[in-house]
Amino acid sequence: MDNEQSVSAFVEALGSSAPTPGGGAAAALVGALAAALAEMVARFTVGRNAYRAVEPQAQAIVQRTEQARVALLALVAADERAFRAVSAAYRLPKTSEAERQAREEAIQVALMAAMQPPLEALKLALVVVTLARDIALIGNATVLSDAACAATIGDAAARSAALNVLANAALLHDAEAAAHALSEARAACAEAASLRDEALETVYRRMGVESL
Amino acid sequence: MDNEQSVSAFVEALGSSAPTPGGGAAAALVGALAAALAEMVARFTVGRNAYRAVEPQAQAIVQRTEQARVALLALVAADERAFRAVSAAYRLPKTSEAERQAREEAIQVALMAAMQPPLEALKLALVVVTLARDIALIGNATVLSDAACAATIGDAAARSAALNVLANAALLHDAEAAAHALSEARAACAEAASLRDEALETVYRRMGVESL
Repeated sequence: MDNEQSVSAFVEALGSSAPTPGGGAAAALVGALAAALAEMVARFTVGRNAYRAVEPQAQAIVQRTEQARVALLALVAADERAFRAVSAAYRLPKTSEAERQAREEAIQVALMAAMQPPLEALKLALVVVTLARDIALIGNATVLSDAACAATIGDAAARSAALNVLANAALLHDAEAAAHALSEARAACAEAASLRDEALETVYRRMGVESL
Repeated sequence: MDNEQSVSAFVEALGSSAPTPGGGAAAALVGALAAALAEMVARFTVGRNAYRAVEPQAQAIVQRTEQARVALLALVAADERAFRAVSAAYRLPKTSEAERQAREEAIQVALMAAMQPPLEALKLALVVVTLARDIALIGNATVLSDAACAATIGDAAARSAALNVLANAALLHDAEAAAHALSEARAACAEAASLRDEALETVYRRMGVESL
C-alpha cells in the first residue's frame, strides 16, 4: 500500500481479484486501527485532573500505542511486497528439471520471507490488545467503549495475522520452521483472546452495564 | 470521513484526541474490510472451472459483499456526522432553566440519532459474517484463509458496533428504546460469534489443518 492511498481505494482493491492487498495486509491495517483506538482513549486520559493518579501510565500507553500504530501501518505495505515476491517466484519458468528445482527453491525462500510480516503483525497486535486491556483499567470513563473496541479489533487482527501465518506454513517444506511459526501463532492467539475478554469484562464492570 | 482521505491520515485522526473519527467509525471501516475480504474470495471462485458447480452462489456472494462493503464505508462518514451532532447538542447554552431543558432534549434527540449508524453497521457486519461463512464452505481453496479472516474481522466489527450502541444506550432517558437497541445488539453479537466459529471450523477442516 502506498500510505497516501485513499481509504475507499484500499478497501476496493482488497475486494478485487488483484493479487494484493490480501488478508495479511488487512490484518495489519485492522491492527493499526485497534492501536489508534487504544491511543485515543489514552490521549483522553492524559492531562485530566480526574486521572492525575494514572498520568504516567496513560502517557506510556500513548507512546506505545502510537509506535504500534505506525509499525502496523508499515506492515500493510511490507505484507504486499512479500506477497508479490511469492507470486513472482510462482511465475518462474518450469520447463527443464533445473528450472523446476530453481523455481521450487525460490518459492520456498519467498514463502519463508512472506511469513515474517504476519508474524510481526501478530506480535504487535498482541501488544495492542495488552495496551487496550491496560487503558480499559485506568482510562477516561467517558470513552471506555473505545477501549473495548480496541481490544476486540486488536484480537481480530491477531487471529487474522495468525491465519496468514497458518496459510503460509502449510506450503513450507521446512516442517520444523512451519511447526515453530504455528506454535508461536497459536500461543499468541490464545493470549490475545484472553486479554480481550479481560478488557471487555473490565469495561462492562466500569460502565456498570451487563455484558453484550 | 471524506472517502478520499488517505489510509494513514484516517488512522492518525482515529488515534488523536479529535472528537471524530471514533469507535463507531472504526467499527464500520473494519466491517468494510471484512466485506472486501469475503468479496475477494468470492471473486477468486467465480469463473473457475473447478468451482463451476457453485458459480451462481459465488456470483451472488460477490454482489452482496460488494453492496455491504459500499454501505459500511458510507457508515464511516454517517457515524462521524451523527457524533458531531451529539457534540453540538452538548455545547448548547445552559444558563437558564429553559435553555437547560432545550439542551437536554436536543442531546436526547441527537443520541437517539447517533445510535442508528452503529445499529446499521451491526446488521451489515452480521450479513458479512454470514457471507464469509457461506464462501468458506464453497470458495476457492487457495484463498480460504482470507474467508476465515473475513469472518474474524466481521465478527469484531459486529461486536464493536454493538459496543457503540451500548455506549449510546447508556445515556438515553428513553429506557424502552435503550432496552430494545441493547437486546438487538446482544442477539446480533451472539449470532456473529457463532457464525465466525462455524466459518473458522470450516476453513480448518477444508485446509486439513489443526485449529489455531
